Amino acid sequence: MSSCTAKLLLHCPDRPGILSEITNFITVNKGNIVYLDQYVDHTENIFYMRIEWDLEAFQIPRDKITEYINTLYAKKYNISYRLYFSDQIPRMAIFVSKMPHCLYDMLARYATNEWKCEIPLIISNHPDLKHVADRFDIPYYCFPISKENHEEQEANEMELLKKNKIDFIVLARYMQIISNKMIEEYPNKIINIHHSFLPAFVGARPYHAAFKRGVKIIGATSHYVTEDLDAGPIIEQDVARITHKDTIEAIINKGKDLEKIVLSRAVQKHIARKILTFNNKTVIFT
Amino acid sequence: MSSCTAKLLLHCPDRPGILSEITNFITVNKGNIVYLDQYVDHTENIFYMRIEWDLEAFQIPRDKITEYINTLYAKKYNISYRLYFSDQIPRMAIFVSKMPHCLYDMLARYATNEWKCEIPLIISNHPDLKHVADRFDIPYYCFPISKENHEEQEANEMELLKKNKIDFIVLARYMQIISNKMIEEYPNKIINIHHSFLPAFVGARPYHAAFKRGVKIIGATSHYVTEDLDAGPIIEQDVARITHKDTIEAIINKGKDLEKIVLSRAVQKHIARKILTFNNKTVIFT
Amino acid sequence: MSSCTAKLLLHCPDRPGILSEITNFITVNKGNIVYLDQYVDHTENIFYMRIEWDLEAFQIPRDKITEYINTLYAKKYNISYRLYFSDQIPRMAIFVSKMPHCLYDMLARYATNEWKCEIPLIISNHPDLKHVADRFDIPYYCFPISKENHEEQEANEMELLKKNKIDFIVLARYMQIISNKMIEEYPNKIINIHHSFLPAFVGARPYHAAFKRGVKIIGATSHYVTEDLDAGPIIEQDVARITHKDTIEAIINKGKDLEKIVLSRAVQKHIARKILTFNNKTVIFT
Amino acid sequence: MSSCTAKLLLHCPDRPGILSEITNFITVNKGNIVYLDQYVDHTENIFYMRIEWDLEAFQIPRDKITEYINTLYAKKYNISYRLYFSDQIPRMAIFVSKMPHCLYDMLARYATNEWKCEIPLIISNHPDLKHVADRFDIPYYCFPISKENHEEQEANEMELLKKNKIDFIVLARYMQIISNKMIEEYPNKIINIHHSFLPAFVGARPYHAAFKRGVKIIGATSHYVTEDLDAGPIIEQDVARITHKDTIEAIINKGKDLEKIVLSRAVQKHIARKILTFNNKTVIFT
Repeated sequence: MSSCTAKLLLHCPDRPGILSEITNFITVNKGNIVYLDQYVDHTENIFYMRIEWDLEAFQIPRDKITEYINTLYAKKYNISYRLYFSDQIPRMAIFVSKMPHCLYDMLARYATNEWKCEIPLIISNHPDLKHVADRFDIPYYCFPISKENHEEQEANEMELLKKNKIDFIVLARYMQIISNKMIEEYPNKIINIHHSFLPAFVGARPYHAAFKRGVKIIGATSHYVTEDLDAGPIIEQDVARITHKDTIEAIINKGKDLEKIVLSRAVQKHIARKILTFNNKTVIFT
Repeated sequence: MSSCTAKLLLHCPDRPGILSEITNFITVNKGNIVYLDQYVDHTENIFYMRIEWDLEAFQIPRDKITEYINTLYAKKYNISYRLYFSDQIPRMAIFVSKMPHCLYDMLARYATNEWKCEIPLIISNHPDLKHVADRFDIPYYCFPISKENHEEQEANEMELLKKNKIDFIVLARYMQIISNKMIEEYPNKIINIHHSFLPAFVGARPYHAAFKRGVKIIGATSHYVTEDLDAGPIIEQDVARITHKDTIEAIINKGKDLEKIVLSRAVQKHIARKILTFNNKTVIFT
Repeated sequence: MSSCTAKLLLHCPDRPGILSEITNFITVNKGNIVYLDQYVDHTENIFYMRIEWDLEAFQIPRDKITEYINTLYAKKYNISYRLYFSDQIPRMAIFVSKMPHCLYDMLARYATNEWKCEIPLIISNHPDLKHVADRFDIPYYCFPISKENHEEQEANEMELLKKNKIDFIVLARYMQIISNKMIEEYPNKIINIHHSFLPAFVGARPYHAAFKRGVKIIGATSHYVTEDLDAGPIIEQDVARITHKDTIEAIINKGKDLEKIVLSRAVQKHIARKILTFNNKTVIFT
Repeated sequence: MSSCTAKLLLHCPDRPGILSEITNFITVNKGNIVYLDQYVDHTENIFYMRIEWDLEAFQIPRDKITEYINTLYAKKYNISYRLYFSDQIPRMAIFVSKMPHCLYDMLARYATNEWKCEIPLIISNHPDLKHVADRFDIPYYCFPISKENHEEQEANEMELLKKNKIDFIVLARYMQIISNKMIEEYPNKIINIHHSFLPAFVGARPYHAAFKRGVKIIGATSHYVTEDLDAGPIIEQDVARITHKDTIEAIINKGKDLEKIVLSRAVQKHIARKILTFNNKTVIFT
């Protein structure tokens, strides 16, 4: 699979024939299907599909594929879709504050080519993690944020993101609320890690809340950021067992490993174009 | 360890010497310590201990042990404790409504002597599960409950519990609120299973809420019942992974296995006298 | 979906068009596809599919479907397949020896209609669990087995299985080797539960071996029985964490819960016709 | 707990009084016990204990503690023990070959002071990971190893280890056999990560073996290195679920996260002096 592939993610009301038509369209035009996963939500009657095919012998030029899909299927089946090409390397911006564990984990994956993406810059509201960025030779921009300058600084950040053609943002324990304006600019393209098993312990200091409640399992949740705090579509969750012997410090330490793994799994799926969102939920193709 | 053992569970403000004194007290009086687990909460400065010793050669008569502890240590160290003897078989009442999976799991353990307890009776607000009780030859009492007769029926239930010398109650998917009166009668002696990863999805229909929220992991929680709904000390939790493909029915089915295992683990620990409660949390000795 | 459905499980060398052709065949003949899962093993170049469709309006009579598939696709694509109908309720025989935990778990699911199957009989080499069968009103046949009579008794068992039209067998901690003759009669239709995380601790007394080795996690594995002991296609596995504090008895008790859940999950998938086997591995459709 | 503490790990044949005596010894000499965990293996009749106390007011000089323990208890109770002080920062050498994921994870923890240790050097048989060491400013020594020079190069390594006063070694996916000579020099002080759920898939290419066997769960195991390959005392294990859809590459990628987390958990426990080894098993204090 050295040549370029197209990845089509779509959903539409379920109707007989849709799967055949799409697969036929690709096969007839000499596209070699290398991946197909589909799923029907029979409760909501929605058809979801992810299909990937080799473009080497594909008879439709890649810049015309959208046109064909629109003309032939999109209206007919009321399809919503996204089309990606494997040679479009997504460009990620990482936002951090003061905690480095998720940042280190992501940069290690990046540095070892585990992820097929570019990380042109890291943004922070604090200077604390500049030395980490330096170690990996990634530009680090510091935008200190106060109540007064929040709007202005976010505008500066967004300008920088635009200039760097950023496709999506990862909040790697970034301790600032993202404004609706930025969220609208990056719909389902801002990934956050929340250090609890959502929807338990929404908001600040979830480990302290978990400790106080006496839970026997803690968790971490990565999700797309929406206007409602900690309420966006969940991408990935995981948990770790604790006991009465675990102090707050022990819980926070166990949590760090959860956070970094859960966040990185979500980012990996996003980069691989494996995620569809609908109705504030995710469909994760395997 | 065929002879009788004493099990002492205690907590008190942590002070040097307490552990030595208690273990010395037992050793000097020729009690053979067969189990000891202790733990200091350095944040709250509380000392917790569970100690079990063989009574065969113990020189203090078992009915005098309480007196000795009170005189020698309880005041001095401000100790709260419970003392059990291994030949006191705890008597459990099971409350059910219409769902049998937890009931079957518990009765199978009981029938195979996995649990060292007696189950003199099963109480329900519905007749539906009588045939299950019949299969295991356990008396089944049905107290249909309405808004009007709730208080009266609970009084009848409590009379029955007293008559049968019930030590503790297990709510095996019992779909009625327990009154404060009954809770006071059985403090930290009523075990409930809630079909969510508490504190997420408190209250009714948690699986539906989990499905709607789009979580990637579901859970079950067993806890002691207190006056606050689903907010008592957590004994045990476990989780299962779900995907977007899981329908409500699939989630409910996966949940059933979680519920029965989590509830049975909690009951097992309660029977084995492994649980201390303090500050709305549990200390689970291993 | 109250009417009958057909379930087709197939695998064949991957070739373009196979998916379209099959889905077209069903759609064109007015079958309503209610489930489709497919997967291509690109290493071995094998296409796997499970497809289920409603027969209500399907224009090909159900007893002709096999003929059509054979004529149209089986040779052309070199397809191996199994076809099931949802109104064919599979008939299961349970084999047990002396340990009842898996048996109870299975019978509870059966009694509560969690499983769409029939259990016409239980077979054992010991009389010990007859009372369990009696509780659930299921005939219990005891065939004591010695070195001398092994062949003869198995012949008797197989006659009984035939007479009862048994479709598949579940070894619920049955402590006898199944002969190749019986395995050939029920290929990929005998499900065993092994009380270890295979391929670790093949053979007898795996918990003792796990204890001796000092592992920190124990497991259970359900698999189809083949001629090689504990080496058949794995259906399901799960694990539980242990510590140095767990005695052999504690490990065995934790293991029991693993075994029953892992076995029941495997049986459930088998009943739902979700499993394809190939190359001594299973493909589990979701 | 800002002052120095002593950590005593011991095991001996279980006899009444040992716990009281040790705790008394510390308390009477004005040591404030900040941690105690003990456990009796009733099968083997061994007593295990880890006890930590503040030295601030302790009346025995720290360089005399060993003498006291030897004189008062070691012979009397046949105690084997290790004594550590919290201000002795253990010095770790990391051995790597070509895979960087465990190395990055460890260095990130080191750089963020998650671990109380020194890492004076990294040793490898290949130059490939020098740039990683450079990023974290840690000296990197390359000793290319062939059949012919194995003994000589190991001698060079050991000289370097001595010169750097290395206390323990972590093999972070180091693909060379360690000689018995080096193992004897660092008994229970060389931690390896094996990329399987031991004892399944001992030896080379365990992921390929797991893929071929068709397991549904993969694992990783960290253990102390002994003369028997992959057979030393297990410190930590963890697992991840896979399906038939996971290719070898996918399994290897999932495995990497397992390996790094499992290895780091083991290292963390070793650094915190939480591990006792006996009979080729570990006792892990909590």
